[in-house]
Amino acid sequence: MPPFNKVLVANRGEIAIRVMKAVKEMGMKAVAVYSDADKYSPHVKYADEAYWIGPPPALESYLNIERIIDAAEKAHADAVHPGYGFLSENASFVEAVEKAGMVFIGPSASVMNRIKDKLEGKMIARKAGVPTSPGPLSPIENVDEALKIAGEIGYPIMLKAAGGGAGVGIIKVDNPSELAEAFERSKRLAYSAFGRAEIYIEKAAIKPKHIETQLIGDKYGNYVVAFERECTIQRRNQKLIEEAPSPSIKEEERKEIIEASIRFGKEINYFTLGTMEFVFSPVTHEFYFLEINKRVQVEHTVTEFITGIDLVKLQIRLAAGEYLPFSQEDLKIRGHAIQFRINAEDPLNNFTPQSGYITYYKEPTGPGVRVDSGIEVGSWVPPYYDPLVSKLIVYGQSRDYAIQVGLRALNDYKIGGVKTTIPLYKLILQDPDFWEGNFTTAYISEKAEYFTAKLKEEQEMQIAIAISIYNRGLMKKKTEQKAPISTSNGKSNWKTYGIISQSSPRVLW
Amino acid sequence: MPPFNKVLVANRGEIAIRVMKAVKEMGMKAVAVYSDADKYSPHVKYADEAYWIGPPPALESYLNIERIIDAAEKAHADAVHPGYGFLSENASFVEAVEKAGMVFIGPSASVMNRIKDKLEGKMIARKAGVPTSPGPLSPIENVDEALKIAGEIGYPIMLKAAGGGAGVGIIKVDNPSELAEAFERSKRLAYSAFGRAEIYIEKAAIKPKHIETQLIGDKYGNYVVAFERECTIQRRNQKLIEEAPSPSIKEEERKEIIEASIRFGKEINYFTLGTMEFVFSPVTHEFYFLEINKRVQVEHTVTEFITGIDLVKLQIRLAAGEYLPFSQEDLKIRGHAIQFRINAEDPLNNFTPQSGYITYYKEPTGPGVRVDSGIEVGSWVPPYYDPLVSKLIVYGQSRDYAIQVGLRALNDYKIGGVKTTIPLYKLILQDPDFWEGNFTTAYISEKAEYFTAKLKEEQEMQIAIAISIYNRGLMKKKTEQKAPISTSNGKSNWKTYGIISQSSPRVLW
Repeated sequence: MPPFNKVLVANRGEIAIRVMKAVKEMGMKAVAVYSDADKYSPHVKYADEAYWIGPPPALESYLNIERIIDAAEKAHADAVHPGYGFLSENASFVEAVEKAGMVFIGPSASVMNRIKDKLEGKMIARKAGVPTSPGPLSPIENVDEALKIAGEIGYPIMLKAAGGGAGVGIIKVDNPSELAEAFERSKRLAYSAFGRAEIYIEKAAIKPKHIETQLIGDKYGNYVVAFERECTIQRRNQKLIEEAPSPSIKEEERKEIIEASIRFGKEINYFTLGTMEFVFSPVTHEFYFLEINKRVQVEHTVTEFITGIDLVKLQIRLAAGEYLPFSQEDLKIRGHAIQFRINAEDPLNNFTPQSGYITYYKEPTGPGVRVDSGIEVGSWVPPYYDPLVSKLIVYGQSRDYAIQVGLRALNDYKIGGVKTTIPLYKLILQDPDFWEGNFTTAYISEKAEYFTAKLKEEQEMQIAIAISIYNRGLMKKKTEQKAPISTSNGKSNWKTYGIISQSSPRVLW
Repeated sequence: MPPFNKVLVANRGEIAIRVMKAVKEMGMKAVAVYSDADKYSPHVKYADEAYWIGPPPALESYLNIERIIDAAEKAHADAVHPGYGFLSENASFVEAVEKAGMVFIGPSASVMNRIKDKLEGKMIARKAGVPTSPGPLSPIENVDEALKIAGEIGYPIMLKAAGGGAGVGIIKVDNPSELAEAFERSKRLAYSAFGRAEIYIEKAAIKPKHIETQLIGDKYGNYVVAFERECTIQRRNQKLIEEAPSPSIKEEERKEIIEASIRFGKEINYFTLGTMEFVFSPVTHEFYFLEINKRVQVEHTVTEFITGIDLVKLQIRLAAGEYLPFSQEDLKIRGHAIQFRINAEDPLNNFTPQSGYITYYKEPTGPGVRVDSGIEVGSWVPPYYDPLVSKLIVYGQSRDYAIQVGLRALNDYKIGGVKTTIPLYKLILQDPDFWEGNFTTAYISEKAEYFTAKLKEEQEMQIAIAISIYNRGLMKKKTEQKAPISTSNGKSNWKTYGIISQSSPRVLW
């Protein structure tokens, strides 16, 4: 018997479809919700039923608790899956779902209330003996206090918004002379993004890498950690490439964060999927706990590849009150997986989000390739939501194998109509620093100029090819009427681009 | 460094593309060959270079050794991958490839010459202590001899063509009165299919299941067996559904055939991928060796899922003289995988092959799903070749999980233009006998009437839906001109099919 009859997925795009696949496979009905901008979106087509919940922006629809509960009641859903983002970590939503007599597939409202912000999370971490970065557990009042604390813990330090997320408002400060300006700027960013100006200080890690663990708990106090993921390749503190296992930690370090994560879970009686985020210094070998994400993670997919577990199905079963079906000893890492977030963004233009219709769409397939997509030919990428349109996940026997599969699959992935981050990922996969795990969270910004130059070169080549094909077409028509026109040396100027094969016609405009 | 520079793939369809993916991932160039019928086929588009080798039928192109060697020389290929079928087990082809100074990715010509037919294979198996079915190792001269031998080993017995393959010419005989007629018929079938009338007798297994092992050897005498596959679901002795591991054998039985397969490999100095095929009786718990397939198997994919190994890349490395990179102890089974052969065949019409253009094509995606396809929208399924157009492979933590993923993925797989075996597989996955592993090689024929009835019902429903949509369209136009027409009770006759939702318009012709 399936754990529920009908699950409403309070989300859109790839994660809505991914959750609905799990729901359907388990023999349950999948209910979608959609805004005006998503009327014809793939997640609506994929659902067994779909309900309109309002216009964009998200505040009027995907963040509108009342309308979503209304849809769930209309559909007679008995459970609600929030996906990630939107209402997935909103305590009021959990309460509303439970009040309506449905099961929320995620943590309890009380856990959400207890860890509303990063400082509260850090406080619990210290209590549970989870390694945290040096720095006080309260917001900083003024610049003088900031200077004093920074002096005590030592530079470089990070200024962070207590109410923050998604990397917004985080500023690294390398010496005291930068602190005053950075302090005011961080406060302003924090206030405008989260409505709270509270910021706090912590010691920055040296050559920082982002490493996180997959915590899983049931309602009976059992915990496992499905190992770690490394998500160091970021732009503006947002992840682009994630992999599992981490190429940067040793077996005893893995053991250390697994045990710390389980202590954290026990401390808060956590009973669903959660992600413990750490910053890790490969120089000092220290982990600093950052925060816990109380939902299925965008990059849960790489963990699924290396463990063989379907995490979303497990999450649904745990929400229904089932026991964890395995213990830590049952879990083994096999092979290596890498996820590429396919964002509708222009990597040549500071990752500006792209909106538009998908005019061409071909996904890579075959061994070791998984695509979780929210788009198809003809679908519209609206400007209102997260630019993540699809995820490419690749698997290999080893990290080298996974990189090989990744490059092949990125070459095979063709998206027309909007610019994406695919060309950037192809460059990263050909970078020896990436092969060797030789990167920090600053990797993209440090290599920005090189990547930009290479991307520009490729774009110029593509334009040249397109013009050449177009001109050859024109010439074909012309040659039907008169003799071919040659340049003085009988060769095409386009030859300088090295893109026309030797068998191309010796004609030009 | 990649093991070769350029690999010519002497095949077409899904296996050509699957091999080219491995070739590309390893940093080598992939060369395709094609017949007139495949000019615009996906395998040609996917290659780095492609060479025309003649018209259909295969004898003029994919079986034409001279033309393929010619193409390989033109392309300056340094290795040739034969795929499966066509020339993959042809000793003359191996010799021609080697004479041209290239590496054949497969066994040596001498191994191929040594095991040209099933009886020779059986002889080696007996020598190597591999379990074989009772019965003499030589062809049967006449009916009297057949009656004598059958009497000795006991009915039921099988009559088989010594030079045969693909199940052709195999006849099961349950008692002496059937033998004379069956003997003559089997001889005729053998002669017309393989040009040799030699047939032999072996004892038939009770409630037979088809189980095979994945043998892997290197050039230095090292062997592993990447466990077994069960391929019991067949029609006309050809596999339709394959899974790994087998749901029918015990751990000690697995160990028994692994060890027997390694003995066989050692006996013939085998150094590439090979498949040891057995018939297994879950009643007597006996294995009978059938034959060895000396190439990558259609169903190698399920082994890849449960072991995490890319078998085609491994095959290429072994051909280049690399050592086996792991031992038997390194291999572990994780989870369960099932492959569905998507054949362009009409399961409602005795699996008649279908030819035509693909008018609609949408592949399933997501966790646990792999598609190895040889078709795309607009491609032509020619009448000349094997009806296998694509393979759907699904993976789950357990066999139950894999079945769930399979049903979801089959529902998501949409192919228009030709009939396929997909609807049949959906029925099989809903059959409790399949869930419980309760099937023999006669499963499809035993359930033929039930499956046919269900498939007919579904076809009728689909036609009804199409007509209803068409008529609703017509009605819309009509109602623009005059008032809606209702039947006497105001309800649509189509309601009897239960296919129109309650919100459908209350109008009818």
